[in-house]
Amino acid sequence: MAQPLKVNSASEPFADLPPICAQLFEAKAKKGATFDDIAKAIGRDEVWVAALFYGQAKLSEQELAALSNYLELPHASLQAELGANWWPRRGLGPMPPTDPVLYRLYEGVLVYGNAIKAIIHEKFGDGIMSMIDCKVNIERKPDPKGDRVVLTFDGKFLPYLKW
Amino acid sequence: MAQPLKVNSASEPFADLPPICAQLFEAKAKKGATFDDIAKAIGRDEVWVAALFYGQAKLSEQELAALSNYLELPHASLQAELGANWWPRRGLGPMPPTDPVLYRLYEGVLVYGNAIKAIIHEKFGDGIMSMIDCKVNIERKPDPKGDRVVLTFDGKFLPYLKW
Amino acid sequence: MAQPLKVNSASEPFADLPPICAQLFEAKAKKGATFDDIAKAIGRDEVWVAALFYGQAKLSEQELAALSNYLELPHASLQAELGANWWPRRGLGPMPPTDPVLYRLYEGVLVYGNAIKAIIHEKFGDGIMSMIDCKVNIERKPDPKGDRVVLTFDGKFLPYLKW
Amino acid sequence: MAQPLKVNSASEPFADLPPICAQLFEAKAKKGATFDDIAKAIGRDEVWVAALFYGQAKLSEQELAALSNYLELPHASLQAELGANWWPRRGLGPMPPTDPVLYRLYEGVLVYGNAIKAIIHEKFGDGIMSMIDCKVNIERKPDPKGDRVVLTFDGKFLPYLKW
Amino acid sequence: MAQPLKVNSASEPFADLPPICAQLFEAKAKKGATFDDIAKAIGRDEVWVAALFYGQAKLSEQELAALSNYLELPHASLQAELGANWWPRRGLGPMPPTDPVLYRLYEGVLVYGNAIKAIIHEKFGDGIMSMIDCKVNIERKPDPKGDRVVLTFDGKFLPYLKW
Amino acid sequence: MAQPLKVNSASEPFADLPPICAQLFEAKAKKGATFDDIAKAIGRDEVWVAALFYGQAKLSEQELAALSNYLELPHASLQAELGANWWPRRGLGPMPPTDPVLYRLYEGVLVYGNAIKAIIHEKFGDGIMSMIDCKVNIERKPDPKGDRVVLTFDGKFLPYLKW
Amino acid sequence: MAQPLKVNSASEPFADLPPICAQLFEAKAKKGATFDDIAKAIGRDEVWVAALFYGQAKLSEQELAALSNYLELPHASLQAELGANWWPRRGLGPMPPTDPVLYRLYEGVLVYGNAIKAIIHEKFGDGIMSMIDCKVNIERKPDPKGDRVVLTFDGKFLPYLKW
Amino acid sequence: MAQPLKVNSASEPFADLPPICAQLFEAKAKKGATFDDIAKAIGRDEVWVAALFYGQAKLSEQELAALSNYLELPHASLQAELGANWWPRRGLGPMPPTDPVLYRLYEGVLVYGNAIKAIIHEKFGDGIMSMIDCKVNIERKPDPKGDRVVLTFDGKFLPYLKW
Amino acid sequence: MAQPLKVNSASEPFADLPPICAQLFEAKAKKGATFDDIAKAIGRDEVWVAALFYGQAKLSEQELAALSNYLELPHASLQAELGANWWPRRGLGPMPPTDPVLYRLYEGVLVYGNAIKAIIHEKFGDGIMSMIDCKVNIERKPDPKGDRVVLTFDGKFLPYLKW
Amino acid sequence: MAQPLKVNSASEPFADLPPICAQLFEAKAKKGATFDDIAKAIGRDEVWVAALFYGQAKLSEQELAALSNYLELPHASLQAELGANWWPRRGLGPMPPTDPVLYRLYEGVLVYGNAIKAIIHEKFGDGIMSMIDCKVNIERKPDPKGDRVVLTFDGKFLPYLKW
Repeated sequence: MAQPLKVNSASEPFADLPPICAQLFEAKAKKGATFDDIAKAIGRDEVWVAALFYGQAKLSEQELAALSNYLELPHASLQAELGANWWPRRGLGPMPPTDPVLYRLYEGVLVYGNAIKAIIHEKFGDGIMSMIDCKVNIERKPDPKGDRVVLTFDGKFLPYLKW
Repeated sequence: MAQPLKVNSASEPFADLPPICAQLFEAKAKKGATFDDIAKAIGRDEVWVAALFYGQAKLSEQELAALSNYLELPHASLQAELGANWWPRRGLGPMPPTDPVLYRLYEGVLVYGNAIKAIIHEKFGDGIMSMIDCKVNIERKPDPKGDRVVLTFDGKFLPYLKW
Repeated sequence: MAQPLKVNSASEPFADLPPICAQLFEAKAKKGATFDDIAKAIGRDEVWVAALFYGQAKLSEQELAALSNYLELPHASLQAELGANWWPRRGLGPMPPTDPVLYRLYEGVLVYGNAIKAIIHEKFGDGIMSMIDCKVNIERKPDPKGDRVVLTFDGKFLPYLKW
Repeated sequence: MAQPLKVNSASEPFADLPPICAQLFEAKAKKGATFDDIAKAIGRDEVWVAALFYGQAKLSEQELAALSNYLELPHASLQAELGANWWPRRGLGPMPPTDPVLYRLYEGVLVYGNAIKAIIHEKFGDGIMSMIDCKVNIERKPDPKGDRVVLTFDGKFLPYLKW
Repeated sequence: MAQPLKVNSASEPFADLPPICAQLFEAKAKKGATFDDIAKAIGRDEVWVAALFYGQAKLSEQELAALSNYLELPHASLQAELGANWWPRRGLGPMPPTDPVLYRLYEGVLVYGNAIKAIIHEKFGDGIMSMIDCKVNIERKPDPKGDRVVLTFDGKFLPYLKW
Repeated sequence: MAQPLKVNSASEPFADLPPICAQLFEAKAKKGATFDDIAKAIGRDEVWVAALFYGQAKLSEQELAALSNYLELPHASLQAELGANWWPRRGLGPMPPTDPVLYRLYEGVLVYGNAIKAIIHEKFGDGIMSMIDCKVNIERKPDPKGDRVVLTFDGKFLPYLKW
Repeated sequence: MAQPLKVNSASEPFADLPPICAQLFEAKAKKGATFDDIAKAIGRDEVWVAALFYGQAKLSEQELAALSNYLELPHASLQAELGANWWPRRGLGPMPPTDPVLYRLYEGVLVYGNAIKAIIHEKFGDGIMSMIDCKVNIERKPDPKGDRVVLTFDGKFLPYLKW
Repeated sequence: MAQPLKVNSASEPFADLPPICAQLFEAKAKKGATFDDIAKAIGRDEVWVAALFYGQAKLSEQELAALSNYLELPHASLQAELGANWWPRRGLGPMPPTDPVLYRLYEGVLVYGNAIKAIIHEKFGDGIMSMIDCKVNIERKPDPKGDRVVLTFDGKFLPYLKW
Repeated sequence: MAQPLKVNSASEPFADLPPICAQLFEAKAKKGATFDDIAKAIGRDEVWVAALFYGQAKLSEQELAALSNYLELPHASLQAELGANWWPRRGLGPMPPTDPVLYRLYEGVLVYGNAIKAIIHEKFGDGIMSMIDCKVNIERKPDPKGDRVVLTFDGKFLPYLKW
Repeated sequence: MAQPLKVNSASEPFADLPPICAQLFEAKAKKGATFDDIAKAIGRDEVWVAALFYGQAKLSEQELAALSNYLELPHASLQAELGANWWPRRGLGPMPPTDPVLYRLYEGVLVYGNAIKAIIHEKFGDGIMSMIDCKVNIERKPDPKGDRVVLTFDGKFLPYLKW
C-alpha cells in the first residue's frame, strides 16, 4: 500500500527541476496511484508520465488540467511551473550513472551499442533511430525462472540527408 | 549487393579487439551475408552475432566451428583469437558516444532513464533489469510515415539481496 | 496563449546569472510577448534578445530603458543587475549539452566541424569565422514534409595575423 | 595555385578514419580542385563533399564511381574502404575543440545555444532541429569592412512524440 | 563511549540523501548503539544497516517499524522519507574517492581487478559476480602483528545469456 | 579443454605491460594449466599469479625460475622483462571500468563503500584497511540457486599516525 | 557614467570568495571609480587591484585601510574578511574557461604555449617564467584599424635547481 | 654551442603534426641557428617562427622558399607537408599543461584571468582581445636580482556585435 | 599582529566540513595564536593541528578537551561535531589544485614522482611509503639568498604482501 | 644482484620520452649500478639522476660526458637525444596516479595540502614553496617497527610580487 512521501526538492535530480516536480511524487503517493493510473487519467502511457514527473516531457493544456484534477494539485501552480511557457530542459545526470538501474541501461550502450548500430545500418541504411519520434514501453513478462523486464524503444528511422 | 570491404584494424574500436574481428567483417562482406544469415548458420540471433563481431560475446566450440565454416575463415585462427581461452573485455568507447546512432541510445538513458527506473521499481520493487541475462532484439516495423526501428531489451529482473 | 510562469531562479542556468534574468522570462510570459515583440520594442533581433535573457549580451542605456518600459519591470532593478557596471560572463554549461535541442547543435560541430573548417580555409585562407562579430538568425521555413529551422551564423572572417 | 600535399595518415583525425581519407586530400591537391569542383563532378554540395573526405558521409554507388573517376583514384580502393559495406562512424574529437576555427563553432553553442533553443520552442513548440535531415551551407559574403562567412544549418523541425 | 553527534546534512554525501539519513547517525550516537546492535534489533547484518544509513538500501515495513522503535525516531518521518514510496538512488561519489579508506577499495579494483576477472572466468566461465544478489561482510581478525580487516563479497555468479 | 591462444600484445592492457605478459597467457593456454596449477608450481595463490600475469606483482628469483620452468618460457626473457630490475607499475585502466565484471567491483565501492568505511571505523577506529598488506581470495561456493563467487580481501588495519 | 550595481554573491566566482568581494564591486560602482582610481588611492596597479577584488591578492594593513577609506566600506569588515588572518585561495574556474574573454587567454596557451617555451629556453636556458614574481599590465594602444589590447606579463626567470 | 639533435617524431606533440616539424628542429640545431636567426632569414618574428615549428602557423610561398633555403631542407618536402594545401590544426595539449613552463602561463589565466577581463571591459567595453589578430613577443630584461621574461600579447580589441 | 577573522563557512573547502571547522580558524585568529601555540597546548605538531582544522584528523577525548579549553570554544560543540562519533572524510579538492601553493606540491608528484618511486624501490624493494603511518613536518630554513621551506614526509615503508 | 633488463620503450611513460631514456635503465641494470653510484660518478644526487632517467632534468655538457662514460653509452646518442638542444617536457601522467607508490604522494596533497599551505602562510606570509628552486631527498631511516622513508622537499620561499 502507498504511504505518505516527502521528497527532498533540494536533492538531485529535483534541484534542477521546477519545484513542483517533487510535489508530483508526493501527490501520487498520497493518492496511492500508480503511474499507469495517472496515465489513464490523462490519456498517456505510464513511461511518458514518469518522464513528465522528472521534467522530461511537456503537458498540453488539457493534460495539465487533467493531471491537476486527478492529483488534486492547484491548477495555477501546475500552470506556472509546467505550463505553456515552460519548456523541458532534458537530460538528467550524472553520467556515467551511479545508480545500478540506470547504469545497466548505460552498459547496454557500452556493450551492445556497436552491434545495434551495425544491425540498423544493415536493415535500414545510413541513418539513425530517432529518440524524438520514439515511444518507450515497459512490460513485466512472467517467467518461472524470474519475471523479466521487457523494455522497448520504438523510434522512427531517419535517413541521413544528402545535399 | 555486398562489395569487397577493407577494415582498418588499427582504427577504433578494432585496435583494442583481437585482430580477427576486423577480418570477420571483411569475410561477411565478401560472402554478401547479412548478420541474420550468419545467425541462422550458427544458431544465434543477429544482434548477438553483431556483438560477437565486436568482441562482445563468447563463442562455444560448436558456434566457433560453424562460424569458421560459414565465413570460410581458418578454424585455427578463430580458435587462437576467440576460442576457449579468450574472454571478452566488454565495453566499447568513447562515452558519451560521438556517433549519432550510438548517441541516440545514450540520450535515451539521459532523457528516459529516471522514468524507466521509476516504472521498474513500481512494477517490480527494489532491484534492476539485468544486462547479463538479457536479450536484445531489433525489428523493422513498416510505417507509412516512415519505417520504425523497434529495439527491445528483455532482461531478467534481479531483486536486491538483503542480508 | 501565454500563461503565468514561475521560473526557479536557483536552478540551472539561472543560478549563475543575475536573479533578474529569471524575472525577465516571467515578465515576458505575463505580457504574452514573443521574443520578436520585445526585439521590436527595443530595436534588436529576437535571437539577440533571447541571448540577453540568458545573460549573454549587454544592454545599452537606451535598450535597458526600453526593455524596462516594455516589460513593466522596475528600471532601477534592471540598472542594478544588468546595467552599465555589469558585464556578461558568457558560456552556459553543461558541455556536452544534455538537452537534445542543444546537443544537436553540438553534434553539428562534431560531425560537420572539420568540413566547415576545410571550406572556410579554401574560400578565405588561414583564419576563422568570428563568433564576436557575428549575427545569429533563425527562420521558420514552411515545407510540406515538415517545416524547417533555418539557423544562420553570419560572422566576419578574421585572417591570422603574421608578425 | 594548388600544390603537392602529403597527409600524415597516422595523425588525428585520420588515424581513426579509413586510410583512403588521407589520399582523398592528396588527390584533390594534386588535381588542384576545390571542394566545389568535386561537388559538381559528383552532384553534391561542397560542404557535404568535405564531410565525406573526413569520413562523415556515405557515398552511393554512382557517387563513388564519379569520385573515383574525377580524382583518378582506383575504383576498387574506394569500394573497399568507403563502399556499400562501410558505414560512417561520425563525430571527430577532441571536444572542446582546440583548433580556433572549430572552437568558435563550439563557442556559438556555449553562448547562443540557450537563446536558439528558446526561439525554436517559441516558433515551433516542443521539439528539435534535426541534425540528420539537415543541410549545411557556407557562403562568402563580400563586405567592405571585411568579408563574412555565412554558415547556415537548414534542418527539419522534429516535434517530440507523445504516447 | 558514544557521545552526542551533530551531522551537517548540507555536506556530502548527506546533501543528496533524504534529510533523515543524517538524523539516523545522530540517533545512533545518542543511543550509543553499534551498527551491529541496530542490525540485531531489525534482523539484518551490520553492513546492510550501514548501507541503509547512507540511503543505499530499502527497508521493509517491518524493518522500518523496528528501526523507528529502536532508535526512538518518529515512525511517520521514517515512513515519509524512507518508506514504501521511496527508492534508493544508489552510488555515492566522488570517484575516484578522495578518502583513503574508500580509495583503498578502489585501488583494489585498479590493481587486482583484472586478476579477479581472470579467475572468475576460469572458475565459472563467461559471466559476472552479481553486485545485486550479493552480501558484504566485515570481520575483525586478531593478529599479533596487527589485527586485520576481512572484507567479503559473496555474490551470485551470473552467466551471460546467449540468444 | 584449453586451446591455443594468441594474445594481441598491442591491445589494452597489454600495450603498457612488458611484452612477455601476453606470452604468459599464451604459455598457460598451451599447457592447459589453470592459475591454480601455476600457483602450486611456484608456491603462491592463484589470484596473486593472475595479478602477476597482468604485471601487478613482482617475482622473487626462485619464483621466476619456477615459473620459467613450469611454463617452458626462456629464463632469460623472464629475467629481462620481469626480473630483479623490473618494478611493477600498478593500476590498470580505464576507470570507471567498462567491462561488466570489473564494473561490478567498482559498483561495490560506489554502493557499499561508505558503509564499509563506517563499519571499519566502528570496529577499528581511525585508520584504513591496507591494500598493500592484503591477500585477495576467490572461492566458488556451490548453491542450488546458482553457485556463488566469494571474494575476500584480508588486509591489515593501519591506524592513522598522530604526531 | 557609473551606475548602481547589485552583484549576486551566490553566483560564480563570488560563491567561493569572501562575501565582501561582491561588495567591493558594488562600492566601486557606487563611487563611479575605475580600477585605476582605486589603484592610485592605495598605491598599486589597476590589474593588481582587480585581482584583489576577485580574492586573488592580499592587502597589507596600510592598503586595507586606504581601500576602506576610499570605497567607504567599514574597516572592520575588510579586516575580518580580507585582513591579516586571511589568505587568498587562488585560481578561479571553470577550466577551460567558457567566457570568450578568458578563453582567448587560454587559447593563447594552447596555440602559442610551446613556442613561448621554446623561446624562453633558447634565451634563458632550463627554467621558467615565474607567475609569482610577476607583474601583469594592460594598456590600450590606439590604432586606426581598431584599438589594441597590450597585455604584458613581466616575470622573473627561475632556473631549475640541480642538486 | 648548438649540438646535433634527434627528435622522436612519435612522441607528443610531434605525433599529431606533419613529420617535417621534427626535422625543422633537427635542421635548426644542425645549423646552430636561433629562432631569431631564422626569423630574420624569412622576415618574421622569432615567436611566430617557433609557433610555425610546432605546426601552429602557415607559411606563404615566399616564406616557405626562404625557410627551405636557410635550413637546407628539400623545398619539395616543405611544400608537401606545410605548403599551400596544408592548414594548421591549432592547439597542442595536454590541458592543464603538465610542463611547468606551460603551466605557469595557464596559471596566469587561473589567477589573473578575471582581473584581465574586468580591466578590458573597463577600458574598452563589451568585447574581447583577439587571439587571431594578435602578436606575441618575448624579451629578456636584464635585472640585477635576476633577469626577467617580458611576454607581451598585442591583440586587437573586438567589440561584441549587436544585431 | 593577528586580527579578527570571519570565515565564510559556505565556501570551499568549509562547505563539506563540520561547521565548527570555520570557527576553529576564527577562534585561533581571535586569540592571536599560531598553529604551533595550539599544538603545544594539546601536545601535537603544528602540521597535524592544521590538518585537524581542515577536518583531516581525529582528536582524542583529551585533545578535544585541551583544544576546547585553549581556544575557548564550547566543549559540547566540539564534542558534537568533531568528537568520538565523528570520523574524518579525508581529501580536499579540487584536483589538480588551482591554488599555486597546493599546485606546486602536485607538480612535485608530476615531475619527481617517478624518480621517487625508482629510489624507493632501489632502497627498499617492492612496496610503498605509507601516507597513513606518516609524519609531515615543515621548517623555515634561513638562507641569505632567500629563506627556504623544508617539507618532510616521514612514512613507514610497507612491503607488498605476497600470498 | 642486478640482472639484465629490457625496457619496453613503447610503453608509458617511455613512449613520450626520448628513446634513450629506456636505454639508460638498461645500461644501469647491466652495470649493476645504483642511482647513487651514478650520482657520484656525475656529481649529482640520486633523486636528480632518477629524474633525469625519466627525462625530467637537463644535463650539462660535463654531466652528459660523465654519464656516457660511466654507463658506457655512446656519447653521440646522448648528445643527440638529451644534449644541449633538447629541453625537458616535464610532467608524467596519468593523474590521479594509478600506481600506489605515486598515489600515496598524491594523497599527501589531498589530505595534508591545505594544512601545509596554512603553515607556509603562517611562517612565511603570502607566497609559495618553489618547485623549481627545490631539492628532493630520500633517506632510509632504520626503525625497529619497520624502516621508514624520509622524503624531503627543500624549496625556496617565493613571496607574491605586488605591483
